[in-house]
Amino acid sequence: MMKEHISNKQIVLNQYVIGYPKESDFGVRFSTTNCSLSHGSSTPSVLLKNLYLSCDPYMRHRMSDHVSHPGTIVQSFTPGSVLVGYGVSKVIESTHPKFLEGDFVWGMIGWEEYTVITNPESLNKIKHTDVPLSYYAGILGMPGIAAYVGFHNMCSPKEGDSVYVSSASGGVGQLVGQFAKLMGCYVVGSASTQEKVELLKRKLGFDEAFNYREEQDLGLALRRYFPLGIDIYFDNVGGHMLDEVLLHMKVHGRIALCGMISQYNIDDPEGLHNSFSLIMKRIEMKGFVGTDFKHVYPEYVELCIKYLQEGKLVYVEDIAQGLEEAVSALIGIFHGRNVGKQVVCIAKE
Amino acid sequence: MMKEHISNKQIVLNQYVIGYPKESDFGVRFSTTNCSLSHGSSTPSVLLKNLYLSCDPYMRHRMSDHVSHPGTIVQSFTPGSVLVGYGVSKVIESTHPKFLEGDFVWGMIGWEEYTVITNPESLNKIKHTDVPLSYYAGILGMPGIAAYVGFHNMCSPKEGDSVYVSSASGGVGQLVGQFAKLMGCYVVGSASTQEKVELLKRKLGFDEAFNYREEQDLGLALRRYFPLGIDIYFDNVGGHMLDEVLLHMKVHGRIALCGMISQYNIDDPEGLHNSFSLIMKRIEMKGFVGTDFKHVYPEYVELCIKYLQEGKLVYVEDIAQGLEEAVSALIGIFHGRNVGKQVVCIAKE
Repeated sequence: MMKEHISNKQIVLNQYVIGYPKESDFGVRFSTTNCSLSHGSSTPSVLLKNLYLSCDPYMRHRMSDHVSHPGTIVQSFTPGSVLVGYGVSKVIESTHPKFLEGDFVWGMIGWEEYTVITNPESLNKIKHTDVPLSYYAGILGMPGIAAYVGFHNMCSPKEGDSVYVSSASGGVGQLVGQFAKLMGCYVVGSASTQEKVELLKRKLGFDEAFNYREEQDLGLALRRYFPLGIDIYFDNVGGHMLDEVLLHMKVHGRIALCGMISQYNIDDPEGLHNSFSLIMKRIEMKGFVGTDFKHVYPEYVELCIKYLQEGKLVYVEDIAQGLEEAVSALIGIFHGRNVGKQVVCIAKE
Repeated sequence: MMKEHISNKQIVLNQYVIGYPKESDFGVRFSTTNCSLSHGSSTPSVLLKNLYLSCDPYMRHRMSDHVSHPGTIVQSFTPGSVLVGYGVSKVIESTHPKFLEGDFVWGMIGWEEYTVITNPESLNKIKHTDVPLSYYAGILGMPGIAAYVGFHNMCSPKEGDSVYVSSASGGVGQLVGQFAKLMGCYVVGSASTQEKVELLKRKLGFDEAFNYREEQDLGLALRRYFPLGIDIYFDNVGGHMLDEVLLHMKVHGRIALCGMISQYNIDDPEGLHNSFSLIMKRIEMKGFVGTDFKHVYPEYVELCIKYLQEGKLVYVEDIAQGLEEAVSALIGIFHGRNVGKQVVCIAKE
């Protein structure tokens, strides 16, 4: 049994973010957390020691004030409160029969050293610990499900399809490219630096890759790599990129909308002006959210572990060390500073 | 056997159209057509006397010069050539065993009194002549297939769904609304005049209808009729309307993109700025073209005839009389002047 209160370093949102997030939008708070769980309570809970945090683009939405946007699903963070996101943790105390001290779990946790979870059913128990635990913030967590479902369920891929992935070296994109190669597709990815382009081609098995920031004319780049057009576009960026891709899709093409990172930090979203292509080319465009597909996780994780063991999948992570680096890492993903899936390591175990 | 050459009044495109089509973009030509079909030729053909022409928004694309748009599927008309579109005709001579003199057919024909069809397999023989023949330019022709397939195959409708149809009194929209009512959906349509709004509510069975031109704030109108959001949007107009609707869709909503008439006559298409709603609300948006679904026609036409006989479907047409009225009728649809499906009657039989 631990002492009743423990010191708990936390990352809080200071204020709603306008434009690109900046260091001053966040703060570090040294708090104490009541960690004596009430055994026998009707609402069992677990105390987690947090190990890895996932830096995900969608979190930007939670940093905006969405009161005026009733259609939104993602709830805003409350200024002054601890950030929340996906992460990997170790159970250090539990009153829930399913979770034992020493278990590893992944799920929604606070950006802090310790989190008390009062709805432990939301956590996923980690069975396979012979892979890096950080993978459960990426390939074996929500980004993995998003890539898997987004590609297989939304895009109806088949052997020989031409697949384009934007933000291709990120936590989701690198997996989509590899899943597409496993299906026998031709796969091209775009990224924001030459280093990432090399990574895509040398390590992640993409057939081709390009640095979109170095292309004067995105249309020319797409024509270079897809002279016959694109069957499947897995979109992580939205905006001008999506708009241009619409002109390069093949008839009966499929577009999975996973994220629109190019749009999250600007007030006026870039318009899609080529939407008529959707009719002319009979395109299916589907937005999706990985969390809707939790039910596929048990099957997915077993397949993925097998592929990792067989060397059929690799995963590239960019791991920031220490909670004090978390804000900088999170801000970095909106500038493309991460090379691979951005994770923050708070504690090794 | 007819005389070898017959006089043939034709509508020709004078020049590529820029902006809204205007009378001077078209001309009337008095031609003579060689109507002696070569019996015994390896390429059988039929001579048609044209009865009804369908005025369809997609024809606007064929009036633009698409040389610079390689992604496009619709071929441009050639200036100086006769307009081509869907229509209903009577076979007056045939060297094709499937078509006999006196048969009625529908398919792609010239905007002229007589057309020689050298690929008669493209024509659809009309079996049921106990309905107005003009229906084969609308409810029993391509607009009907588009409405049927677009609603049933693209939108996955179910009883109780909230359905919104734009350009709702047009040749396609009025059918979508009725198909949706037959499924037990709640259906709201928009149109451009009060007369059409009344038609939608009184004659076509829509639950509600509104004149979008009289709404100061389209969002308020949509909230008024869909306080809980829209399950299915059948889009005939595109542009600002589609963009606004994205904000009012329900989670897991479906959008069928059938046409974008609001965009056809402007150089810079209005952008879709609310595309992130597609992700947040997990929306499926599918473009489609009725001609891809010719195979469902035999089944569709039987169902539709049955529904017409039972009074379960009605069809409102706006029939211009005479080929000399064809250009004005065609131009009119881009200004919303038609009330119901716009057809041109060239000859009664």
